[in-house]
Amino acid sequence: MLSKLPAMANSLLLPLSLVLMFSFHGCIAQLELSQRQFWQNLQEQQQHRLRAKTQCRIERLNAREPSRKYNYDAGHYEIWDSNSEDFECAGIEFVRYVIQPKGLYLPHYINAPGLIYVTEGSGIHGLVFPGCAETFESDSSFSSSEGHESRYRDRHQKLRRFRNGDVLALPQGLTYWIYNDKDTPITIVALVDVGNDNNQLDLQFRKFFLAGKPQASQSQGEYRESRRSREQGSQGGRGREEEQEKGNIFAGFDQDLLAEALDVDTQIINKLQSREDERGVIVRAEKLRLALPEFEEEREREREPGRGGYNGLEETFCSAKIRENIDHPARADVYNPRGGRLSTVNSHSLPILSYLRLSAQKGVLYKNAIMTPHWSTNSHSAMYVTRGSARIQVVGNNGRRVFDEDVNQGQLLVMPQNFVVVKKASNEGFEWITFKTNNNAISNQLAGRLSAIRAMPIDVLTNSYGFSREDAWDLKYKREEATLFSPGSKS
Amino acid sequence: MLSKLPAMANSLLLPLSLVLMFSFHGCIAQLELSQRQFWQNLQEQQQHRLRAKTQCRIERLNAREPSRKYNYDAGHYEIWDSNSEDFECAGIEFVRYVIQPKGLYLPHYINAPGLIYVTEGSGIHGLVFPGCAETFESDSSFSSSEGHESRYRDRHQKLRRFRNGDVLALPQGLTYWIYNDKDTPITIVALVDVGNDNNQLDLQFRKFFLAGKPQASQSQGEYRESRRSREQGSQGGRGREEEQEKGNIFAGFDQDLLAEALDVDTQIINKLQSREDERGVIVRAEKLRLALPEFEEEREREREPGRGGYNGLEETFCSAKIRENIDHPARADVYNPRGGRLSTVNSHSLPILSYLRLSAQKGVLYKNAIMTPHWSTNSHSAMYVTRGSARIQVVGNNGRRVFDEDVNQGQLLVMPQNFVVVKKASNEGFEWITFKTNNNAISNQLAGRLSAIRAMPIDVLTNSYGFSREDAWDLKYKREEATLFSPGSKS
Amino acid sequence: MLSKLPAMANSLLLPLSLVLMFSFHGCIAQLELSQRQFWQNLQEQQQHRLRAKTQCRIERLNAREPSRKYNYDAGHYEIWDSNSEDFECAGIEFVRYVIQPKGLYLPHYINAPGLIYVTEGSGIHGLVFPGCAETFESDSSFSSSEGHESRYRDRHQKLRRFRNGDVLALPQGLTYWIYNDKDTPITIVALVDVGNDNNQLDLQFRKFFLAGKPQASQSQGEYRESRRSREQGSQGGRGREEEQEKGNIFAGFDQDLLAEALDVDTQIINKLQSREDERGVIVRAEKLRLALPEFEEEREREREPGRGGYNGLEETFCSAKIRENIDHPARADVYNPRGGRLSTVNSHSLPILSYLRLSAQKGVLYKNAIMTPHWSTNSHSAMYVTRGSARIQVVGNNGRRVFDEDVNQGQLLVMPQNFVVVKKASNEGFEWITFKTNNNAISNQLAGRLSAIRAMPIDVLTNSYGFSREDAWDLKYKREEATLFSPGSKS
Repeated sequence: MLSKLPAMANSLLLPLSLVLMFSFHGCIAQLELSQRQFWQNLQEQQQHRLRAKTQCRIERLNAREPSRKYNYDAGHYEIWDSNSEDFECAGIEFVRYVIQPKGLYLPHYINAPGLIYVTEGSGIHGLVFPGCAETFESDSSFSSSEGHESRYRDRHQKLRRFRNGDVLALPQGLTYWIYNDKDTPITIVALVDVGNDNNQLDLQFRKFFLAGKPQASQSQGEYRESRRSREQGSQGGRGREEEQEKGNIFAGFDQDLLAEALDVDTQIINKLQSREDERGVIVRAEKLRLALPEFEEEREREREPGRGGYNGLEETFCSAKIRENIDHPARADVYNPRGGRLSTVNSHSLPILSYLRLSAQKGVLYKNAIMTPHWSTNSHSAMYVTRGSARIQVVGNNGRRVFDEDVNQGQLLVMPQNFVVVKKASNEGFEWITFKTNNNAISNQLAGRLSAIRAMPIDVLTNSYGFSREDAWDLKYKREEATLFSPGSKS
Repeated sequence: MLSKLPAMANSLLLPLSLVLMFSFHGCIAQLELSQRQFWQNLQEQQQHRLRAKTQCRIERLNAREPSRKYNYDAGHYEIWDSNSEDFECAGIEFVRYVIQPKGLYLPHYINAPGLIYVTEGSGIHGLVFPGCAETFESDSSFSSSEGHESRYRDRHQKLRRFRNGDVLALPQGLTYWIYNDKDTPITIVALVDVGNDNNQLDLQFRKFFLAGKPQASQSQGEYRESRRSREQGSQGGRGREEEQEKGNIFAGFDQDLLAEALDVDTQIINKLQSREDERGVIVRAEKLRLALPEFEEEREREREPGRGGYNGLEETFCSAKIRENIDHPARADVYNPRGGRLSTVNSHSLPILSYLRLSAQKGVLYKNAIMTPHWSTNSHSAMYVTRGSARIQVVGNNGRRVFDEDVNQGQLLVMPQNFVVVKKASNEGFEWITFKTNNNAISNQLAGRLSAIRAMPIDVLTNSYGFSREDAWDLKYKREEATLFSPGSKS
Repeated sequence: MLSKLPAMANSLLLPLSLVLMFSFHGCIAQLELSQRQFWQNLQEQQQHRLRAKTQCRIERLNAREPSRKYNYDAGHYEIWDSNSEDFECAGIEFVRYVIQPKGLYLPHYINAPGLIYVTEGSGIHGLVFPGCAETFESDSSFSSSEGHESRYRDRHQKLRRFRNGDVLALPQGLTYWIYNDKDTPITIVALVDVGNDNNQLDLQFRKFFLAGKPQASQSQGEYRESRRSREQGSQGGRGREEEQEKGNIFAGFDQDLLAEALDVDTQIINKLQSREDERGVIVRAEKLRLALPEFEEEREREREPGRGGYNGLEETFCSAKIRENIDHPARADVYNPRGGRLSTVNSHSLPILSYLRLSAQKGVLYKNAIMTPHWSTNSHSAMYVTRGSARIQVVGNNGRRVFDEDVNQGQLLVMPQNFVVVKKASNEGFEWITFKTNNNAISNQLAGRLSAIRAMPIDVLTNSYGFSREDAWDLKYKREEATLFSPGSKS
């Protein structure tokens, strides 16, 4: 690229750098401090979790399905039992919900950062950034009794389309709603990171609805009741808000005070408080029409860092990129045509994750393929199976095997930091989404081209294991693949 | 160094930027990464608190006055009972003290970051920055027996004047003292953020005095005794050091060892240890004369970022700006002539707060005015009433109303993150200072021009609440004001 | 200063600065924000620890020796009892081990950041950075049966030599091994910072061995059994893995699954799992030959920031500087020929420490010399005595003396943040290494030229202590030395 510079400029390079050296030593110093910066960046990526316990007895992990279900007018909501050592020590909650066509998940916010994965369907959602301008105009203007239509054109904040394969970041405390404007159900799974330091209170998952009456009709018939400990009182257990849900936020305020604050009639307040609303929190909204620019696959790229400059709050916060699709095969970060593929979304590709301190990885293992034994040095992992099945083993310190089961679609497995996991897909293959409690999770491997074994000298291996040099050679070099392995010759 | 640049360089602007583009990609990359930087900055502003409990049962908040009082020679000290769910879950302590004219609050340090608000009076304080030079000379030199006065001119670190309306930052572990050189009492309220990660030990508030004998004569007659749980042992409760205070730091060391370390006579050590001192920790100091440059209102501006360059430790750490006045009406960040005003001090205006991870907000509501229902997405809030009274309601998750009372001058109310609060001033108006456990607290609103309601499409509102479009229109647009509202037409 | 530039350059200044202004306002803004940056940097250096308790009753500290010893084939391993208030409230573990000549400490990783100090000997170690290239070639190639020797030249990641006086940084989750290729034993002490936020799980110290059978033959005869509480169950106590160690990671997996993943014979898997290996985790490795560039004292300097530019992952992460020697007298940061010397390694000199959030200080006190009474405002301290003995006093809040003993070689003393400590060397002098739970620990002093006393005006001292001005003068100015004091005239 320097070849494009005019010749006369060439003589300038040295003095120019001197100018910069002395005028902008701040910048120069920064350029020089690459190693310092690297470690500081890594440090800034640390999670600072609420660790519930000073002693976690992780004897056995469990692959589990949700333990409780709430049926609503236009969908349902399921939540995993978090009253177990693996959930409590990881400091997470996990939910799954379905929004039927024309279903609206009512506006609400939660008390901890969430990371959403859309397993099926497509829809529209709104996420309210406080203080940001209403930059979208909607077709939903209407003629007033006086007929001044232009005065009544509705404005609101940006709307966003999402579809299956999307990861959506959800900051705590920000109001969001979801609408299914398509003909097929939307299915969503979400990690709620109550142990995250963005939540300053406790390990309870708290939801604050701006509409509806959150207390739902429950259908528990199909679930086993595995919550005996919860009913035995409060010792150690985390209660969940669902048991006590009574109303939305407005319902908690005095009617007259609200009417005065909002400057509206108490009849409007009555509806705001929704005390008689029996639709639950996912409601049917037949007449909902939303203005949205035509959806383009390429759209997000316009929002990526490197474009647009530094144009203030509007450009950075208000129009933040909060979505990334990681399902498309072309998006893969790791690919082996005989093994499978892995796609990672972290704060490098989705900067808001540096605030949430979370990341996710979508994995596909082909029939009988194997994912290398590996561990995460700086995060816990919550793996949800989106398709197929696999045999999975997890080993902790002392070589204790804490998990050894076949895991199937719809199950969740929580794996603690530093524990080693190996996955072998069944005949039907295996697909999953893993949420990690670090915005740049670092993985270590025990086999293959990127393994710790490969990084050590042959002589260390022979002396460590009592190997011959030939054995050590095989161990180090026979599995040439990285991360995702084709089915072994043994199988 | 610019002299080396040839005149022809003028034509170089475009190639210049190319050079810069490729030579200094570090800087350029930074410029490009505005969105990345934004989220990282926000992430760096996270608090990483010691969360005392994994389950907080916040059924009811309380507006409270201090529960314990200590009388000293030239002032008194009051402390709020922190043995309650709201204090423990927020991880804070709160104190108030009065320093009478000629009173000296003895040198000491505390184990956690503090944020001070001066409600009345004016005085001088010293904050010792370790390793910094003694840059002030004092008039208090004296003639030695040998008459070499110049040799005995006293030097010390910078002194700072403060006055009512000031917020003062107080890093943990740094020695400070306060002197009242005026004719009216100084009244101070302070948050001590024991849950802050700058305190690595526990949730106890610990004070380390360098002088005096901290054990004070107590006058508890005027306080209700609400500390029964504390006396029942250690289960769950946080003890306070006041109960056991015995001496200053020097009193804990062996006399001979101290005498040797300080190279002074044991008679001086005796006085240092102050075992017989009955004055308490706020003492009368009639003869205290301090050298201080004439106080100017504008003085701090000289210290603000953007001036002074990068002149090393002296310019950044040793002469750190630790004070900002937020009382003057002209300082307001939010103003409505019919509603009131709000002034915020955070790490943007007072950079040291990025280290303490705290911020504060001064609020004034005029007669019968209303502050919009709002919640903080990233901090707890401790509100102290400085004047007047208001009716306040707080609503938690599930729409549970956890507070609904008239709050008066001198009372403190602790509100958890994400809980929604509305304030309506009484006929006498309402003024308060709120301390927040985040250096850049983010607020969300439920009513007015900046509300989450306003950010959502009309159609979402109609379907959420079963509204007509007219009702939704009223809800969204009738309250045109932002944050602080004039008294409603209903009142 | 701009006026000094020749006229021809003048014409360049405006456009140049405009270019820079608009192209690089990010950088310019940064240069201006020195104070802001300073505090943010300090904030980023905060530790965010798992604080085990909300109430620490630190009545008495103890200088202790290890409580448990494990003998291995070519060395032994000792660990301090962490079941005590000082260890639990500091959130640390401490170990010491000896590797005999030809001893190999088998490859393993730990669950929390460690900081190592080499008290004796010299050796070679490998630390596996995941994803980094194998940049070292070893002499250990061998001829295959087919005779293609070049194909079998072994490659591995960088090896590093260390020697006595080195501080080594050890990130959690990264595999490392140590080999003693010299003729004298290596002795190592190490802090394992289980309370560090890089460990997201609990306060247990967990080790994951890649080889060997960690369960060791124990020799406890020489240790007092001080672990009764541990045997009484799980209440409050932290168990240690040693009690249950059974095997290495490979031993936890199914043989067939491993064989398939690694694509090797089960006979190799058998050796990998090392079920019958009775050598322990420090084994004799007579035939270990390692390729290592000739060791030069100056070698690390080449790796320091400021050299090498920003050449990507390889330059920053993969070849990270993880070692610094702090024993050489010329390395001292504080030196008094009549008192002693202090050398500090923190994230300024060893950037990786900004990620581990740890630092260390080597101290030497000459015969009868005194280290000023001081406290750390932002870290706990774990002091291990490497030579000699000293009388040490520690004073907490309320002037409570929590420690007053002679401390000897091989003992460890844990001192909480903000507690004040004074050290006086015995006739034989005193040497120690202190590990601190902050990458830039800030120290405050009570005596000498850098003391808080010196920073305060004479008048504040006279009024605080009831001194005459002459007394205050003596207190402030008689001990002219800084930090390390010569023996007092009193002694």
